[in-house]
Amino acid sequence: MSNRTLKGGKLTSKKSSPALKIIPLGGLHEIGKNTCIFEFNDEIILLDAGLGFPNDEMHGVNIVLPDMTYLRENRHKIKGMIVTHGHEDHIGGLPYHLKQFDIPVIHGPRLAMALLKGKLEEAGVSDRTKLNSVSPRDMVRIGSSFMVEYIRNTHSIADSFTVAIHTPIGVVVHTGDFKVDHTPVDGEYFDFQRLAEHGEKGVLCLLSDSTNAEVPGHTPSEASVYPNLDRIFSQAPGRILVTTFASSVHRVQLILDLAQKQNRVVSVVGRSMLNVIAQARNLGYIKCPDSLFEPLHAANSLPPEKVLILTTGSQGEPLAALTRISKGEHRKLKIQEGDTVVFSANPIPGNTIAVVNTIDRLMMQGANVIYGRHQGIHVSGHGAQEDHKLMLALTRPKFFMPVHGEHRMLIQHGKMAQKMGIPAENIVITNNGDMVELTEDSISVVGQVPSGIELVDRSGIVHHEVLKERQQLAGDGVVTVAAAVSWEGKLLAQPEIHLRGVVASVEKSLLQQLVIKRIERTLSEQWTDFAKSLDGKKQPEVDWTGLQQKIEGDLERLTRRELQSRPLVVFLLQNPEEPQVKRVGRRRQRTAAQAAS
Amino acid sequence: MSNRTLKGGKLTSKKSSPALKIIPLGGLHEIGKNTCIFEFNDEIILLDAGLGFPNDEMHGVNIVLPDMTYLRENRHKIKGMIVTHGHEDHIGGLPYHLKQFDIPVIHGPRLAMALLKGKLEEAGVSDRTKLNSVSPRDMVRIGSSFMVEYIRNTHSIADSFTVAIHTPIGVVVHTGDFKVDHTPVDGEYFDFQRLAEHGEKGVLCLLSDSTNAEVPGHTPSEASVYPNLDRIFSQAPGRILVTTFASSVHRVQLILDLAQKQNRVVSVVGRSMLNVIAQARNLGYIKCPDSLFEPLHAANSLPPEKVLILTTGSQGEPLAALTRISKGEHRKLKIQEGDTVVFSANPIPGNTIAVVNTIDRLMMQGANVIYGRHQGIHVSGHGAQEDHKLMLALTRPKFFMPVHGEHRMLIQHGKMAQKMGIPAENIVITNNGDMVELTEDSISVVGQVPSGIELVDRSGIVHHEVLKERQQLAGDGVVTVAAAVSWEGKLLAQPEIHLRGVVASVEKSLLQQLVIKRIERTLSEQWTDFAKSLDGKKQPEVDWTGLQQKIEGDLERLTRRELQSRPLVVFLLQNPEEPQVKRVGRRRQRTAAQAAS
Repeated sequence: MSNRTLKGGKLTSKKSSPALKIIPLGGLHEIGKNTCIFEFNDEIILLDAGLGFPNDEMHGVNIVLPDMTYLRENRHKIKGMIVTHGHEDHIGGLPYHLKQFDIPVIHGPRLAMALLKGKLEEAGVSDRTKLNSVSPRDMVRIGSSFMVEYIRNTHSIADSFTVAIHTPIGVVVHTGDFKVDHTPVDGEYFDFQRLAEHGEKGVLCLLSDSTNAEVPGHTPSEASVYPNLDRIFSQAPGRILVTTFASSVHRVQLILDLAQKQNRVVSVVGRSMLNVIAQARNLGYIKCPDSLFEPLHAANSLPPEKVLILTTGSQGEPLAALTRISKGEHRKLKIQEGDTVVFSANPIPGNTIAVVNTIDRLMMQGANVIYGRHQGIHVSGHGAQEDHKLMLALTRPKFFMPVHGEHRMLIQHGKMAQKMGIPAENIVITNNGDMVELTEDSISVVGQVPSGIELVDRSGIVHHEVLKERQQLAGDGVVTVAAAVSWEGKLLAQPEIHLRGVVASVEKSLLQQLVIKRIERTLSEQWTDFAKSLDGKKQPEVDWTGLQQKIEGDLERLTRRELQSRPLVVFLLQNPEEPQVKRVGRRRQRTAAQAAS
Repeated sequence: MSNRTLKGGKLTSKKSSPALKIIPLGGLHEIGKNTCIFEFNDEIILLDAGLGFPNDEMHGVNIVLPDMTYLRENRHKIKGMIVTHGHEDHIGGLPYHLKQFDIPVIHGPRLAMALLKGKLEEAGVSDRTKLNSVSPRDMVRIGSSFMVEYIRNTHSIADSFTVAIHTPIGVVVHTGDFKVDHTPVDGEYFDFQRLAEHGEKGVLCLLSDSTNAEVPGHTPSEASVYPNLDRIFSQAPGRILVTTFASSVHRVQLILDLAQKQNRVVSVVGRSMLNVIAQARNLGYIKCPDSLFEPLHAANSLPPEKVLILTTGSQGEPLAALTRISKGEHRKLKIQEGDTVVFSANPIPGNTIAVVNTIDRLMMQGANVIYGRHQGIHVSGHGAQEDHKLMLALTRPKFFMPVHGEHRMLIQHGKMAQKMGIPAENIVITNNGDMVELTEDSISVVGQVPSGIELVDRSGIVHHEVLKERQQLAGDGVVTVAAAVSWEGKLLAQPEIHLRGVVASVEKSLLQQLVIKRIERTLSEQWTDFAKSLDGKKQPEVDWTGLQQKIEGDLERLTRRELQSRPLVVFLLQNPEEPQVKRVGRRRQRTAAQAAS
C-alpha cells in the first residue's frame, strides 16, 4: 500500500498531544463486517460489529468475521459499544464475539436492539452484555472519555443513526450507513440540523459511508419505488410473489400498504422475513392491521388475485424460499399460471448468476417475472456522490476518513473530499487493522493490529489449513491409500487405494500396481537402513512417522505424474503392536501424533 | 417447461410434408457452447461448436462441452460444418469433438479458420477434417440438401457472418452473433442488401442471437469507443496498460491506432492476445507497422510516456497477465507510480468480483485505474432490442426461433417478434437437445436428444459422481479411516484416522476412540453372524466387501453426529492373505472390486 494519506506521505507517529486511536477491524477494502474501535486513554468503545459473507474460494464457509485478537487482548479496556443500525453487516458478529469477551453495555436503536436480543439469546450469550435502546438526539456517556450522540439518518432499514462521538480532543462524526432521503417512508427525517450545528462548532474528523462513492448523482428516495410497484401489482392477473431484503423495513411497509390498497392478503414466507416483520411491527416500525396477514395454507384457498406472497430469496440464496419455489422444491408453494414474481432488489455483485438463474427457472415454471434496474422497483440504501458531498458540506470536518467500502470507493470518496477543500494530508485511506492516531492537529496511521479474518462453518472455525485442504480437495479430489506393515517391513495385506473426486485418467488397477510397487520399494530401502541402525539390538529402531511421511510424499509424486492432476494424498500406515512390551508406550505416542496430523 | 411455442401449445409431431430438423445442442438457456444441428433426409450439417465455462459449483472444471451423443451416434450422416465466426463459444469445442468423430469439411471465415487450425494442431486432430475459408457472399454446397450462403455481419471479432441456409423446404437464416454497426472499424459493412433480398423472396425461419434481448435501444458502434480511449490515453502521464478481450480484433486495432497516433510503442502481454494479434495481422484484419511493437524488456528501458502495454486479464482470470501484475506476481512487469490501467471491457456476470478485486489491487499498487460503464470505453458485440427488430424487419421470417441466450432473453426476443407480427404459434422457445421439426407450414418441438453437459479438467472428463464428490469434499472435507482386520475378525493394528478439510469440533483422540469402539463392535457382531454360517466348514464365509460398506456407513453416521458436519468418509479395510490357498483367486476378485470403488 503506497497511499496512506491521499498525499501519499510517510507514516510517522506523532507523540505530542493527547490522541484518539481509531482502529477499523472490518469494513474497509470490502463490503461487510463493519467493526471499528475508538480508544482514548485506555478506554475502548466499539462501533458496530458485523459479519461478512464468504467468497467462492471459501468452501463450506457460512460467515466471515474479523480477527478480534486486539479486542480479546484488551478486553479490560472495553467500556461499551455503539450500534448504528440493525443490519447483519453491523450487528451479526456479536453472537460470536461475546463468546470471547464481555461488553458492559451496548447502546443502539430500538429495532437493532430487538433484532440483536434475539440473536444473543439464540447463541446463549445474552448474559454477556446489557442492551440499551436509544432515541434520536439521545446522548450516552461511555467511560470517562466518550459521550455519544445519536443523530437520526435515513437508510434502507428503519431506525438508523449517524453518531457524533464527543471526545476530549473534539467531535468525531461517524455517519453509519446512510442515504439522503427527503421523503422517508416512515416520516423520520434526516436530522440535518444537528449535523449542521456540529459543522458550525467544528468536527474534528468525519468517518463516512463510501458504498456508492463510484455512483454519480443522488440516490433516489425509497418513496420512488411506490408508484412503480403500484402499477406492476395492479396489472398482475393472479397471485403476486414479491421478494426483497428482509431487513428493508421501509420496502416491506410499502409492499404491505399496496397489498392493503389493492385488497390482497399477505402471506409471509421465509424465516428472516417473518422475524424482521414481527420485530418491526412489535416496535411500530411497520404499521398494518393483523387482518392483512394470512398463513399460506389459507391464502392458497383464496382467489389468486387476492393474494400477495412476500418471500425471502431476492439474492438467489440456495436455501431461501423463492429459490426452492423456482426449483419446484417448496412443499407448500408451487408456481401456477398467472403468477407474477417481482424482484424488488438488485443482485449484490457475486449473486448475479444465482439471481438470474432463479428468474429463468421461475419463468420456465410459467411465472411472469418482473426484474431489472429499469423497472424502478429498487433503490439503494446508500447515498451516491452528491449525497456524500452534502454530508461533507454539512459537517465540514478537519480530517476525513472514508469507511465502509472497497478500496476504489474509499479512493473516490477521498478525492471528492479533496475537491471540497479538505487538504490531501488530512485524508487517510486505511485498511482493516490500521491504527489511526488522531490529535487536534494531525491524523496518521501509526501501526497495525491483527486484522485477518475468521471463517465459520456450521461446525466451528475453519482454519487456514483446513480451507487450503478444501480448495485442493475441491479442485482435484483425494487419493487414499492404506497399508499395514509388519515390524519386519513386510506388507501384511494388499494395500487399498480409493479415489474420490478424482478424474481417473489411468486404469485403477494399473495405478494400484504402481502404488504397491512404490510402497514395497520404499519399505525395502527403509528396512535396509533400519538394519544398519541395529547396533547389537534385536529389533531395529523403526521411525514409523518418518516412514508414513516418506511414503505419502512418494505417492503424491506418483499420482501427480500418473493422473496429471494434483489430488490430495492421504497415506494411512498401520502396524501391529510392537513385539516388545517395553515399547508400547512409545508406540502409542506415535499413533496419537499421527492421528493428530 | 410450459412454453414451447409462445402460444404454449401442445407438442405434436406433424408427419406430412418433408421436414428440416433443427437440434440445438448448446447455447440455449445459457451463454456459451453454441452448437446447432440441421438435419434433412439423413444429412447433417453442424453450425458452430463452442465451449462454455464452469460455474462456481463445477469444482476443478476448466471447460464445459455439450453432450455430443447424438452426433457420435449419427456420425455417418455428418456432411460438413459451418462456422460463423472465431469466438471460443463458437469454435472452442471442436478440438474435443474431433476426437470422437470426423467432420468431412468445415467452412468458415478466414480468421476463424486460422484460429481453429492452431487449436486442432495443438490437440493433434487436424487430420480429422478439412478447413475451407469463405468470403462474403460465398455459397457452399454441403451434401445434397444444403447450400449455405455467407452474409457479412458486424460483431466484436472481425470476419463474422450471418448465414442463409438454402434447404429443399426453404431458406433458413441463422444470424450468428451480430450487432448493427453502421461504422465498422474495418470498413466491412453489414450486408443488409442480401438480408433484405431474402426477406423479399421469403425466409422460412429465422434463428437470431438473443444475448442483449433485455437491453432497450441500439448497441453503440465500436467506433464510439475511439474518442474516449483517445482522451484517456492522451491524459496518461506515464505508461498505459490496456486490457480487453483478446478476440476483440476491432478494439485491438483501435488501441494500436491510438498508440501510433500518440507515439507510444506497444508491448503485448498474454498468450491469447499474442496469438490473436499474430493471426489477425497475418490475414490483414489488423493493420499496423512491425515497428509499433517492442518486447517488454525493450519497452521497460523507454520513457514511460512512450509505452503502451496491451494485456490479457480483462475478466480477472486467475492466471492472466494483468491479474498476476495486480498481485505483484508477474516476473517482468510491476506497477509503478504514474501507470494508467484501462479496462476496455465490462465484466461478464460471474466475473464481477474477480474484476473489481483486480482493480482494487492495481490501485493499491499505485496505478490510476480507468474502468466502468460511464467511461464509454467498452461496447457490446451484440445487438440490443432495436437491432433485433431491424433483423426481424429485414428478413420477415415466417417462423422464428430465438437462440444464443438465457431463457428470459429468448422469451423477450420472442415477445418482440410477436409484437412485430409473427404469430405466437410460429415462434418456438427451445432448450438444448430439443428436436425442432420445421416444414413449409409448421414449426414444433417433436422430441429430445441427449443434451447434458460434459465437464473437462486438465486430466480428462469430470463425471457427475466425481463432481458430486468434489462438492462434498469442498464443503466438509474428508475423514479417512484404515483398519487391518484378521480372518478371525480381530484388529491387526490400531485403526488410523486422518481428517483433511474437516473442522475438528471434537478432540481427535476422542474421535479416534469412538471410531475404534464402533469398528470393534461391528466386527464382533459380524463374526458372530459369520460363525453361524460355518455349517461344518473350518473357515467362515467372510463377506469383506459387505463388511467394508457396513463399517463405512457406520463411520459416516458417527462422524456426522460427532462433528456436526457431513464430510466424505473413506474406510479402507485391509485383510491379510486368506489362510486357505484354494480361495486366493476369490480374494483377489474382491480386492479388484474394492479398488474399482
